[in-house]
Amino acid sequence: MAIITLTTDLGLKDHYVGVVKGSILKDCPNVQIVDISHQIPAYDILEAAFTLKSSYSSFPDGTIHILGVNPEVNEESNHLLIEYKNQFFIGADNGVFSLIFDEKPQRIFELTISPHEEDLTFPTKDIFTKAACHIIKGGTPEMIGKPVKDLVEKALFRAVSVGNTLKGLVIHIDHYGNVMTNIEETFFKSFRAARDFVIEFRKGEYDIKEISKAYNDVPEGEKVALFSSSNLLEIAINKGDASKLLGLRKSDTIRIEFYDR
Amino acid sequence: MAIITLTTDLGLKDHYVGVVKGSILKDCPNVQIVDISHQIPAYDILEAAFTLKSSYSSFPDGTIHILGVNPEVNEESNHLLIEYKNQFFIGADNGVFSLIFDEKPQRIFELTISPHEEDLTFPTKDIFTKAACHIIKGGTPEMIGKPVKDLVEKALFRAVSVGNTLKGLVIHIDHYGNVMTNIEETFFKSFRAARDFVIEFRKGEYDIKEISKAYNDVPEGEKVALFSSSNLLEIAINKGDASKLLGLRKSDTIRIEFYDR
Amino acid sequence: MAIITLTTDLGLKDHYVGVVKGSILKDCPNVQIVDISHQIPAYDILEAAFTLKSSYSSFPDGTIHILGVNPEVNEESNHLLIEYKNQFFIGADNGVFSLIFDEKPQRIFELTISPHEEDLTFPTKDIFTKAACHIIKGGTPEMIGKPVKDLVEKALFRAVSVGNTLKGLVIHIDHYGNVMTNIEETFFKSFRAARDFVIEFRKGEYDIKEISKAYNDVPEGEKVALFSSSNLLEIAINKGDASKLLGLRKSDTIRIEFYDR
Repeated sequence: MAIITLTTDLGLKDHYVGVVKGSILKDCPNVQIVDISHQIPAYDILEAAFTLKSSYSSFPDGTIHILGVNPEVNEESNHLLIEYKNQFFIGADNGVFSLIFDEKPQRIFELTISPHEEDLTFPTKDIFTKAACHIIKGGTPEMIGKPVKDLVEKALFRAVSVGNTLKGLVIHIDHYGNVMTNIEETFFKSFRAARDFVIEFRKGEYDIKEISKAYNDVPEGEKVALFSSSNLLEIAINKGDASKLLGLRKSDTIRIEFYDR
Repeated sequence: MAIITLTTDLGLKDHYVGVVKGSILKDCPNVQIVDISHQIPAYDILEAAFTLKSSYSSFPDGTIHILGVNPEVNEESNHLLIEYKNQFFIGADNGVFSLIFDEKPQRIFELTISPHEEDLTFPTKDIFTKAACHIIKGGTPEMIGKPVKDLVEKALFRAVSVGNTLKGLVIHIDHYGNVMTNIEETFFKSFRAARDFVIEFRKGEYDIKEISKAYNDVPEGEKVALFSSSNLLEIAINKGDASKLLGLRKSDTIRIEFYDR
Repeated sequence: MAIITLTTDLGLKDHYVGVVKGSILKDCPNVQIVDISHQIPAYDILEAAFTLKSSYSSFPDGTIHILGVNPEVNEESNHLLIEYKNQFFIGADNGVFSLIFDEKPQRIFELTISPHEEDLTFPTKDIFTKAACHIIKGGTPEMIGKPVKDLVEKALFRAVSVGNTLKGLVIHIDHYGNVMTNIEETFFKSFRAARDFVIEFRKGEYDIKEISKAYNDVPEGEKVALFSSSNLLEIAINKGDASKLLGLRKSDTIRIEFYDR
């Protein structure tokens, strides 16, 4: 069975997610629909990008990801169907996709499915599901879109190195209060080489001097730094809420000083 | 695969929804179960009716909708299996169905599946799933119920016209803070004819003089009126929380004055 | 289709549940995944045990239950695959399973799937899904684990009888505010014999003198005692929030006095 994932800010209390699923099953019945999250903060494409970027590689080839956050278009932006690493992504060209992909996508199509007038308020249901089912039923992207070259680009704060210091920031606080930074494991490792380091936050109020492999490498209630399943530096407390207990919030700065042993 | 939808006030933290699904899969394994919402406010059949009324037409023929809000029965009310527009609806005859259907259902059956004594506290799991699987396995309604003529009727405030004024009220606030009224698009359009109008709320503190086609027909942060995917007049703020920012709550009055150009 | 259930404290806002499901579908595509709950309070194995103990018997033989609460292991504990009443249970051996099972499991295996180094932070995704799919694809437990004899035992407060009194406590407050105790129906009935009784709580401030069969055996707003679908004594208010209105919280004592008529 083909797989369609949903990443939206539709929430769970209303009928919105239900009718998106109904529309899919009406159009292409034999499909597995997987909720990634419907609790992206409303209109927040940075969180939407973080969520889908952290998810897609766990799914098999051919999976179709519908991104229903800010799905509306205007004169400058369009609805896109993108092929990337043998998966498909459908959503509005509002910059979110430039934050998800590390490389240029294989193919990008601007959707030309003409929306009925009444489709304007709910493109996730009325357009994205149609595009997804078109692909699942064996249709080609060319039949519902025209090739375009580029995505709308959105700048993102990336972790940077200055002298012996690596500077990043908090990009997501998860359900447990674990603190995700934008410091990638590969960047950290190549910059570190064989040096020692100290991770500082809250203006030096707290520091951590090693990277652990698991939360319970430290005693319960202790702070711990590790690389998460998204390969990003994460600051956590073993069985505790790091965001609350350490006072860390989104956009806070994280500094890592490196020095020779 | 047959489709069963669930609309309940069971919430998501407990095991209740899980055991409803387990009971379905134990009885009829090859079925798609779709959650419409499990966050209907507890015991609120008006919200339950709004939710399912806004949803069912997105699903294909043959879909079975289980309505698990106030599923208990008493001497005057029974469990029903209803056929309406080639779909099935299962729930308690507490008035909720009269709020969902615009026309008389094709067929109404009072369920006669004799509940075991221990089934009384959780009919959604113990009775409704059995009725749904019976239909999916090819059974007829007659085998598990006896035909009845009428539903328990529940009165609902409908939008009304007085002179040149149309008066409705807020019936639902969605996850974004968008405000749904009980003013239907067809009623508005036939009453309006070619006249201009002004939508007033908060006792005239705010007004809107046109109907938009999409949220972003107005600048971000501006109020907007449009007909939602449920074909009801909706008052929203483009990328904002209209309920909070405009102080609109459930049951508040919305007035529309019409005048010749 | 085989069934995998998920009971976790992962929450619904992050991508965590999505990637667990993606990992399953990548490994064994034709499977029904059922969420029991992802809102177990963080790290709370008592609530996890209550939830899964209340759920598993609603599922058919062969169902595989993944328990993703405190999934990390240490020197003394391991990841387990357990066969119990013709179903499978996968999770960490932290005592939670001793709280779920009333009898000794048919077979217990310590998982020997060697985790890659990067798998340490998310065993639910990286280890439990692999074990589940191994079984679904027809593999034997012996191929991924070695038999062990015992589970880590965790003591649980059980309801006790002292003279003519039965003493239990509140173990769970559900989404409606219904109050679940640890007093089992069979224990109550055998201890009661033919005697009358009074259920007392809040140090005798409130009492209930009969067991009802359904919430609406009492008028709306009235307190009611009944045996829930989990066969535990439950104290509720018909269409009300018993926890809030009666001031009952987890771990509060419930006493039942029995006396001859």
